[in-house]
Amino acid sequence: MANKAQVLYDFTAEPGNNELTVREGETITITNQGVGGGWIEAQNSRGEVGLVPEDYIELPGGGRNVEHVAAPAAAHAPDLSFFDAFAAPANNTTQNQASNGKDPWSVWNQDTTGGSSNNWAAQPEGTITGKSAAPDPWGSTAQSHPQAYQGPGAEDDEWDDEWDDVKSNSESGDGGAIQRGGATGSSMKISLNNRFPGFSKSGPELFLLCKQPPKGKEKITIYMGEVGPVWSYPEAQLDCVVADPKKGTKMYGLKSYIEYQVIPNTTNRPVNHRYKHFDWLYERLLDKFGSAIPIPSLPDKQVTGRFEEEFIKMRMERLQGWMTRMCRHPVVSNSDVFQLFLTYKDEKDWKTGKRKAEKDEDVGVMIFSSIEPEAPDLDPIEVEQKCDQFSRFTKAMDDGVKDLLTVGQEHWKRCTGPLPKEYQRIGKAFQNLSSVFTSSGYQGEATLTDAMTSAGKTYEEIAQMVAEQPRKDLHFLMENNNEYKGLLGCFPDTIGVHKAAIEKVKEGDRLVAASKITPQDKVTMAKRVSTMSYALQAEMNHFHSNRIYDYNRVMQLYLEEQVKFYETIAEKLKQAHSQFTTM
Amino acid sequence: MANKAQVLYDFTAEPGNNELTVREGETITITNQGVGGGWIEAQNSRGEVGLVPEDYIELPGGGRNVEHVAAPAAAHAPDLSFFDAFAAPANNTTQNQASNGKDPWSVWNQDTTGGSSNNWAAQPEGTITGKSAAPDPWGSTAQSHPQAYQGPGAEDDEWDDEWDDVKSNSESGDGGAIQRGGATGSSMKISLNNRFPGFSKSGPELFLLCKQPPKGKEKITIYMGEVGPVWSYPEAQLDCVVADPKKGTKMYGLKSYIEYQVIPNTTNRPVNHRYKHFDWLYERLLDKFGSAIPIPSLPDKQVTGRFEEEFIKMRMERLQGWMTRMCRHPVVSNSDVFQLFLTYKDEKDWKTGKRKAEKDEDVGVMIFSSIEPEAPDLDPIEVEQKCDQFSRFTKAMDDGVKDLLTVGQEHWKRCTGPLPKEYQRIGKAFQNLSSVFTSSGYQGEATLTDAMTSAGKTYEEIAQMVAEQPRKDLHFLMENNNEYKGLLGCFPDTIGVHKAAIEKVKEGDRLVAASKITPQDKVTMAKRVSTMSYALQAEMNHFHSNRIYDYNRVMQLYLEEQVKFYETIAEKLKQAHSQFTTM
Repeated sequence: MANKAQVLYDFTAEPGNNELTVREGETITITNQGVGGGWIEAQNSRGEVGLVPEDYIELPGGGRNVEHVAAPAAAHAPDLSFFDAFAAPANNTTQNQASNGKDPWSVWNQDTTGGSSNNWAAQPEGTITGKSAAPDPWGSTAQSHPQAYQGPGAEDDEWDDEWDDVKSNSESGDGGAIQRGGATGSSMKISLNNRFPGFSKSGPELFLLCKQPPKGKEKITIYMGEVGPVWSYPEAQLDCVVADPKKGTKMYGLKSYIEYQVIPNTTNRPVNHRYKHFDWLYERLLDKFGSAIPIPSLPDKQVTGRFEEEFIKMRMERLQGWMTRMCRHPVVSNSDVFQLFLTYKDEKDWKTGKRKAEKDEDVGVMIFSSIEPEAPDLDPIEVEQKCDQFSRFTKAMDDGVKDLLTVGQEHWKRCTGPLPKEYQRIGKAFQNLSSVFTSSGYQGEATLTDAMTSAGKTYEEIAQMVAEQPRKDLHFLMENNNEYKGLLGCFPDTIGVHKAAIEKVKEGDRLVAASKITPQDKVTMAKRVSTMSYALQAEMNHFHSNRIYDYNRVMQLYLEEQVKFYETIAEKLKQAHSQFTTM
Repeated sequence: MANKAQVLYDFTAEPGNNELTVREGETITITNQGVGGGWIEAQNSRGEVGLVPEDYIELPGGGRNVEHVAAPAAAHAPDLSFFDAFAAPANNTTQNQASNGKDPWSVWNQDTTGGSSNNWAAQPEGTITGKSAAPDPWGSTAQSHPQAYQGPGAEDDEWDDEWDDVKSNSESGDGGAIQRGGATGSSMKISLNNRFPGFSKSGPELFLLCKQPPKGKEKITIYMGEVGPVWSYPEAQLDCVVADPKKGTKMYGLKSYIEYQVIPNTTNRPVNHRYKHFDWLYERLLDKFGSAIPIPSLPDKQVTGRFEEEFIKMRMERLQGWMTRMCRHPVVSNSDVFQLFLTYKDEKDWKTGKRKAEKDEDVGVMIFSSIEPEAPDLDPIEVEQKCDQFSRFTKAMDDGVKDLLTVGQEHWKRCTGPLPKEYQRIGKAFQNLSSVFTSSGYQGEATLTDAMTSAGKTYEEIAQMVAEQPRKDLHFLMENNNEYKGLLGCFPDTIGVHKAAIEKVKEGDRLVAASKITPQDKVTMAKRVSTMSYALQAEMNHFHSNRIYDYNRVMQLYLEEQVKFYETIAEKLKQAHSQFTTM
């Protein structure tokens, strides 16, 4: 219990969360290492006790936690093989990230002006996380910092066989005592990781140069549609409802969690899932499809108000949004793992499917080996042009979305802060004058004073309407843009895979000359990069079509509510007006 | 030209007005003493040249200007007779004013919280002045400072015989080159001054103890109405239109001025008046009625933008408001001097009437000698109670009005500043996103982008509407309350006269015992204070009835425009909404 530990990075406690502020180099005493969820309880030299992220300290037993933070870059270092040269985009971002100091994501997250391409380039590989205060769910964009959550993958060995999650350390989902979650709207965790033994080389060359696509595997077809290459869409659109959050307990009531019902429109049969199951699904989808399809992060994991209705409602709403987006994706929704999540029959079925999904080796860039475009091969120059175009577009849209989020956030603040206060003061001033008039002792005062009081109350009502309105309209506009910010944040990684592949193909002649590859390899690479390009185009077309639907829908909703809002105010004022008389 | 002068008080130049900032004790060089309008041009030791108020400096020829500032208090000091004890309220305020230092009105004017009775007590005798920036006509409430304008009374000898005002020094009205005017909404100049030889004793005792009311003079009757004592109202309400401002020139075009047409509804014949004629009328009404009837100050004299349309329109609007209020007053509107102003036949008629009015000795407290209440004498205790009640009411209303003005001013600022900027940014963000979407290269983009652009433009239109709206509604609410602030600012002086009279009557027994007055004097005093009380009650009832009308009217107007405003926004947004589609 008297274990000393060294603080590796500055950590600033967030108020009200039992956290302890520590500084780099400080020595602290571990008072409870079994807190779970990536946190330990510690005491500083001033005797203050609080929670500190495990990753921020060097535990006496060794640098396990440290290793985790530094892992992505370090893991590549000892294996500087030929192929690593092609992993440039992913590697570069890792280095940018490191060079940013202790909080590599701060620039990205603080980029609310949507300005420099620098931020776009600094897009990190790892999980971007933030903890937002409940009343301003988008505040996190400017305040996130690295945190202790390590992702369920790191805990697979502990979690895999547990259905009931009795081990406290496995509470990475909703069960953990103190947990900071990845912010919705940040980038996906790059799928080019080396967690699986078969994929220690993380570049697209794994696919470009693989002997031949495995046989008998499921195929993902790309057709030529009116708008260009498109995924094969199912006849009936998969959909699901996330509903009915229930609080459950375990460990004889010592721990509690929230379980959601997920009801797909195919079976109409509800299945139960906890947040960590969603997170598990996210990890599987990311591994499997992340190189071709941007898989947006799950909504924030969040501790504050974990059992408060507001928070549960918000998380459910965002899980619903995430699931809807996954359902809408023809490739994702058709995958075994996604179907398992939605339609598993019983615990045994779930467990079996879970193990199978985790053993799936057809992940990372190998997804492209499943893709079959029904169209002629593309010229590498055209591939590059397309890729650049998508890169520019997603970058520009990312800027635009962030700009709108910034403006919206300020508007939200004004609407819930100074503006209603001002209407309230106007209302009070009218009522105050009315009560002075009442004291005049003059006959025939009542008509005016009643009308003035009523006008005053009307402005107080308007004040309240103004303050409540953002939840009715701006909220959805913000949520939609926040979702898109998350989605767009995944594109640099996806596009990076393509750029790396294009670079590889460009070097084809030199590599042949240097006998690094055969001429046949070069031909194969060009063909395969064409396949990748078709996939990217299909994905972009999927993105565009969804975007057009989503923005139409959210703008309709926003403007509809705005119209109602102004009409209601006008109606209230009309009522107030009718009470005055100069007869 | 190389005349040196000593600066008596700090003076801070207002930007853009050719003024020179000077500090107390500084020596400056007079470069032009003939600027007129109470200003001189001077140069400081740093060589900077600009205008400084005459009153702020000691001219080489002697302390004439200084004397004027200090005059009201000093004039009383050498004559501490018995009667002066009764002049307490007026005298006290003079002393409060002096004790406040260089800017005795700052407290009064800065009282925007409507809080302490201290400010109410500190109501000064003199002219309260301020210069407001054109776009925010109420800004003056927090920024006024003493200034050079001395009131036309001080210039009577120069002005009296001049119709065409050729002397530059007489340009106290609209003709002066640089002129700061008394702020509308500040107190009236007390009428208990000693400018006229017959009224060197300034207390109400002049009336209370005068031998007997002059015979054959016009009578002002007070009836008992439903609401209590009321003035005798004419059958037809006098009214007038102030219109058609015209720029005239004189001195062979060297000087210019604005002349307004005033058209009374009785003759329907326009007469021409310059601002300084209104000011002359104001002085006459103040002298004659000020002890019984609050005579609100004229609108600001103002130089900035003197010939700009905006300013002329605003001044005309306020002159109209002032004239309407005077027309509505049965006593004021019926007076010879007011009738002269509205209906003089020609220059000769005007001159004759002007001289007659200026020689009128029936001014100050002697107005009460004309008043004949048709009701039994009031008990002095009741008189005091009424007086206190009115004092409390006017004080409370003054607070309420100032509160509303403060709130309104902040709302004005928000509506013309940050709020439209925010709507504009929302509009820009939508349009920006729309133009990003346009660059997608995706087919079927146009419907969304057109709709987004249109929604963006709608928010830009809303921004403009928000910015322009205050001129359409808040403006009138502010003007009305500003007018009432001015009117209410006159009440402490009027009520002070009554309080002094009540105190005098209270001391009746003691004064009789000390043989200062006869027992008959005491009876006369009680009777006369009863007359004064009837006058005050009639005036309060007049005030209340006008107030009820005015506030009903202005609230109707305000709410009507607000309704239109919100309805228009709703309509615009409905239009924008209709362009989005999720079909």
